[in-house]
Amino acid sequence: MEPSRPSSPPPPLPPLAESFPSSRKLERGDLQVPEREITLTDGSTLCVYDTTGPQGHDPERGLPRRRQPWIDARVQRGDSNFSQLHYARRGLVTEEMQFCALRENVDPEFVRSEIARGRAIIPANRNHQEIEPMIIGRNFLVKINANIGNSALGSSIREEVDKLQWAIRWGADTVMDLSTGKDLKTTREWILRNSPVPIGTVPIYEALERVQGKVEDLDLKLYLEVIEEQAAQGVDYFTVHAGVLLRHVPLTAERVTGIVSRGGSIMAKWCLHHHEENFLYTGFDAICKIMQKYDVSFSLGDGLRPGSIADANDDAQFGELEALGELTQRAWAHDVQVMIEGPGHVPMHKIQENMDRQLRICHEAPFYTLGPLTTDIAPGYDHITSAIGAAMIGSMGTAMLCYVTPKEHLGLPDRDDVKQGVIAYKIAAHAADLAKGHRGAQARDDALSKARFAFRWQDQFNLALDPETARKYHDATLPQDGAKVAHFCSMCGPRFCSMKLTEEVRDYARRGMADKSAEFAARGGELYAAP
Amino acid sequence: MEPSRPSSPPPPLPPLAESFPSSRKLERGDLQVPEREITLTDGSTLCVYDTTGPQGHDPERGLPRRRQPWIDARVQRGDSNFSQLHYARRGLVTEEMQFCALRENVDPEFVRSEIARGRAIIPANRNHQEIEPMIIGRNFLVKINANIGNSALGSSIREEVDKLQWAIRWGADTVMDLSTGKDLKTTREWILRNSPVPIGTVPIYEALERVQGKVEDLDLKLYLEVIEEQAAQGVDYFTVHAGVLLRHVPLTAERVTGIVSRGGSIMAKWCLHHHEENFLYTGFDAICKIMQKYDVSFSLGDGLRPGSIADANDDAQFGELEALGELTQRAWAHDVQVMIEGPGHVPMHKIQENMDRQLRICHEAPFYTLGPLTTDIAPGYDHITSAIGAAMIGSMGTAMLCYVTPKEHLGLPDRDDVKQGVIAYKIAAHAADLAKGHRGAQARDDALSKARFAFRWQDQFNLALDPETARKYHDATLPQDGAKVAHFCSMCGPRFCSMKLTEEVRDYARRGMADKSAEFAARGGELYAAP
Repeated sequence: MEPSRPSSPPPPLPPLAESFPSSRKLERGDLQVPEREITLTDGSTLCVYDTTGPQGHDPERGLPRRRQPWIDARVQRGDSNFSQLHYARRGLVTEEMQFCALRENVDPEFVRSEIARGRAIIPANRNHQEIEPMIIGRNFLVKINANIGNSALGSSIREEVDKLQWAIRWGADTVMDLSTGKDLKTTREWILRNSPVPIGTVPIYEALERVQGKVEDLDLKLYLEVIEEQAAQGVDYFTVHAGVLLRHVPLTAERVTGIVSRGGSIMAKWCLHHHEENFLYTGFDAICKIMQKYDVSFSLGDGLRPGSIADANDDAQFGELEALGELTQRAWAHDVQVMIEGPGHVPMHKIQENMDRQLRICHEAPFYTLGPLTTDIAPGYDHITSAIGAAMIGSMGTAMLCYVTPKEHLGLPDRDDVKQGVIAYKIAAHAADLAKGHRGAQARDDALSKARFAFRWQDQFNLALDPETARKYHDATLPQDGAKVAHFCSMCGPRFCSMKLTEEVRDYARRGMADKSAEFAARGGELYAAP
Repeated sequence: MEPSRPSSPPPPLPPLAESFPSSRKLERGDLQVPEREITLTDGSTLCVYDTTGPQGHDPERGLPRRRQPWIDARVQRGDSNFSQLHYARRGLVTEEMQFCALRENVDPEFVRSEIARGRAIIPANRNHQEIEPMIIGRNFLVKINANIGNSALGSSIREEVDKLQWAIRWGADTVMDLSTGKDLKTTREWILRNSPVPIGTVPIYEALERVQGKVEDLDLKLYLEVIEEQAAQGVDYFTVHAGVLLRHVPLTAERVTGIVSRGGSIMAKWCLHHHEENFLYTGFDAICKIMQKYDVSFSLGDGLRPGSIADANDDAQFGELEALGELTQRAWAHDVQVMIEGPGHVPMHKIQENMDRQLRICHEAPFYTLGPLTTDIAPGYDHITSAIGAAMIGSMGTAMLCYVTPKEHLGLPDRDDVKQGVIAYKIAAHAADLAKGHRGAQARDDALSKARFAFRWQDQFNLALDPETARKYHDATLPQDGAKVAHFCSMCGPRFCSMKLTEEVRDYARRGMADKSAEFAARGGELYAAP
């Protein structure tokens, strides 16, 4: 059985200016930290965090290598340990830390201290010099990750680069290449050379390709070869399922949905076949050594995450979490940065426990969760079932949210699915930033709400996460240009508009208070007149 | 400026069987309580709550009047007070209460007691005899409301009936007719006679039409005429903005988005113009008398709800809530059922306070919230920004969630927007039911997850909230019929599937445990062998 392939490849991406009208990209300071400036109709501006990267470069040649001079200088001065964690522990503020500090509007020293204590990471392989550094930690803006990647059944390399650029256009902070088909190395090379955001992979997928899918033939030697090659290419973080231990596997046998993580099921099968401990666990120090050399960060995989509401917070899941806590300290001993992957499918009332345990057991290493999905009954809408859980766990302290697209559980996401997933997760992350009282997060809400209330339609669109869709929806009822400046909208019509009425209420209220002021002054300014 | 109208009306709705394959409607017991039975491929069945109502009736003739014999019997025995609250307080379990008890799988006496103490309502106008009674209260399933209604700028009557039927197909538990244009009475008549769910309205809209939009010409006499007519037609609940008091209005003047509720701004303007107290407040007892006569329930409107993150939980909002608490007791004194409307736009960390205050101040009357939207920055996606808040406040005890469509703030929802809004809110309501540990809620999640894990694709689709979309997304990558029974999916391809691997893991684990058992038995059954 062969899958049907679309008869023609998708059209090229529209230019950035079409997606974000009245916006321009700025680069702040010597480090050229990117941001997007939105100009409103009154001439005022609002700057927003920007992940879109340099535009207009030939994908065959890749992006400019902005980190090259920073890293060259470190080589020249004879550094032998290039890990951000190593520098941070020694009290050194790197250019990457400065860059993140400017991007987040915080003190560089704060960035350094958060990294030094393992509470934040800057995934930045020394060989991925194209990236604009970003930081993942619960005292910074909540980040989102988008997964792309072909499988044996679909997708071409050009489509993957397009998906990368499309995902970062809408706000993906990191991208994972989860390809499992042919040409893994070439696909990854294209993605890395064209990615201004950190790229993560799951190296066990490539290792498995090399043994023709025979799980039992995997071993540490092969795995180390694979990660050395991927690290040399510039991958910024690896998902490593080193916490799936032999003793955990039987705990999954009675689950409703067993093991749903690909990496988790591979390692579980390997453990059972050989009746030996997971070689990623026993060989963890060797893995750390390679990752330290390139400053690849760990994303310690949750191979036993629950795949259904029924399996949430069970012994298998929390047993693995204990192992991840131990591995976190082992990685830190090698100066390797760590984040911890989390579920999955979790009903709302069980989310807090995930966050609490992760912080405690994993020594406050950043948490990076997939959703969680808060119900299983809505395939086709899992970007929504999971945005609910993602917003909640984000507000509790999860540092990065792995997006879920509408096609989750059903098929491979196409371009529109990627956009839907990213936007849903930008919403979740921003809602979490607001809930955490993140400094400055509310400025965009306020600007948009003021525009809305003043009937500045163009500003309302341009301040939106997705200006094009906002405009399109408005135009579906009131397409004329005049409607963009009209002091009413299609919901109520011209006679009957609450916002218009409120303007009158304000006038009345102000006049009323002015009258009262005059009266008060006339009375001689005494606060309480004698009765 | 005239709005553009679609050149042709939308096509007729597809038949119910097309939306829900392998489903049939059942009617349980003497009261013919509806439910939908989904038959799985192994012949087992799962029954789900059903709001779709009787099918195949001529809209010109309306639905059968299933409540007619119940009400006739009450008239024959000489009842003079038909309010469910009145009956409940006297210890009487009505057919409506029995119906709701069967629908929710609870004891009828529990339904009665919850209504008697004001903690739940059954909105059921004695003249809306077509409805299948439903209950709104925090100890029952979380309900959702869908708004429909034409405005001066769009929509025809047939389209409104279509929207009603479309909204209840996907799970709307009540529908509000928010029409503000022409032919209000006729539109409402069509909707009522074709609605198996309770219908709510905001009568001040019609009152305003009758004074040609001149707010200052509104008065109690006219308002009472309007509600008497609407009550006689059979409207089940009225939004009444009686808590917008003169003293609250100046509290909104410095808001970012002033007063965004239409009803709220009308009453605020009236108060200021006349410098008199809101006639809905001063005339509240007269309003109650009419509502009691027909057993119309109050939905006490939150005219001062925040319209932006900046305005959440402010003095205007909570000032009005205090007034609603007082009005709740006044309505109860007239045997009129009450629910309380809530915001609006609220960041996640301020949601709990809304719920806590509402329960305390309004004496546990059911809360009925719009969203809340958890950020303002995503026009075009406010079904998602608000589903996050709705799921959270639902899990905290809100009894009914008013949906928000993707067109919120931008335009009038079309058919697809209505569906998107309803599905997003079914997700929120169900996630809340799970979080509340609602008895039986997880059965559908478990059934779907089991189907997913066993690669029973058809069952996975048919158990979904939206089978058609789930199937369509699957078919986008793997359209062949064979793929529906394949033991893999497009995400990983045939070689590389975590669920397939897990099946093998299970076999290994079971064999492993069997081996261990045999070994254990061979050792003589001692738990700890000597080393």
